[in-house]
Amino acid sequence: MKTITVETSAHAQMVDITRNVAEVLAEMGVEDGIVTIFTPHTTCGLTINENTDPHVTHDVLKQLDELVPWRQPFYLHKEGNSAAHIKASMIGSTLTLIVEWGALRLGRWQGIYLCEFDGPRTRSVYVK
Amino acid sequence: MKTITVETSAHAQMVDITRNVAEVLAEMGVEDGIVTIFTPHTTCGLTINENTDPHVTHDVLKQLDELVPWRQPFYLHKEGNSAAHIKASMIGSTLTLIVEWGALRLGRWQGIYLCEFDGPRTRSVYVK
Amino acid sequence: MKTITVETSAHAQMVDITRNVAEVLAEMGVEDGIVTIFTPHTTCGLTINENTDPHVTHDVLKQLDELVPWRQPFYLHKEGNSAAHIKASMIGSTLTLIVEWGALRLGRWQGIYLCEFDGPRTRSVYVK
Repeated sequence: MKTITVETSAHAQMVDITRNVAEVLAEMGVEDGIVTIFTPHTTCGLTINENTDPHVTHDVLKQLDELVPWRQPFYLHKEGNSAAHIKASMIGSTLTLIVEWGALRLGRWQGIYLCEFDGPRTRSVYVK
Repeated sequence: MKTITVETSAHAQMVDITRNVAEVLAEMGVEDGIVTIFTPHTTCGLTINENTDPHVTHDVLKQLDELVPWRQPFYLHKEGNSAAHIKASMIGSTLTLIVEWGALRLGRWQGIYLCEFDGPRTRSVYVK
Repeated sequence: MKTITVETSAHAQMVDITRNVAEVLAEMGVEDGIVTIFTPHTTCGLTINENTDPHVTHDVLKQLDELVPWRQPFYLHKEGNSAAHIKASMIGSTLTLIVEWGALRLGRWQGIYLCEFDGPRTRSVYVK
């Protein structure tokens, strides 16, 4: 297992980690198989989406904010970041991807994103 | 790795691909292990849900439309299909399933679905 | 493959199954690898979230109820539990986790949860 460290720079942000994952797979010498990517935090997530037009990630984050408001009268969690926990469960903490011929089998427009929902923070991503 | 091709026929649609996945696993001779299913697109997703009453998939798609409207004043992505990208991240692009005795270990009411959010299109699903 | 049985006690509930999963992995003697956790039901899900402050799971469940109402005029599924099916697809039925040195590599605040969306019921969770 290898760990990628990601420094996020905003409260909500999607950071493209495709290249980081590819580099780690090259270091590990993975030629063929499946790879699990996991983030050990409860207020960020991992997803795959378009990495060409940066407006896509803007629209994803903004719509998630609309769906899961930062403040709700019924939130009980005293840290005040319930929305980030909820988004983390909606997006998920783990991805399983396919590797063949030493390369990630992603679609042409796909990138792997760390979704920061309560930053800025230093985040870890495990690759196995 | 094998690829399944799915022709979707509507703008939003859940296509049951359980049989396609089972056939591919039989071709690959998988007896025991885990299988990763991955779609290399950014405006569709993969999920598991009930495959008995077709009203379930209707209700899932309609409620997702309510949650993520096709038009929002804040969408910046010029292609106009931000809603499909957002739903893709909410549902996910990858599933990991269990195979034993040469068969997928699904529940009695479960089917594997490709969720089309911006069709009709030709979609690929990778099975490894 | 081993099966964990979970008795849920409420209509909507997040049950921490981290210890159950760890025990099953110990029984199976898993030292290093990836583990797939799968629930064969269509009205519950699996997620990872904070297991320190129980208010977090309260807030997750309540916000999901806000997003996906139990009754909608357009629901067609006659069993009346469409909301549970929709939440199941939003949260997901499968998780893939990393094991090293005989232990799950979870973050300090992370627990594995079965999310009951239409209980109380007896639920199964497969571990492979």
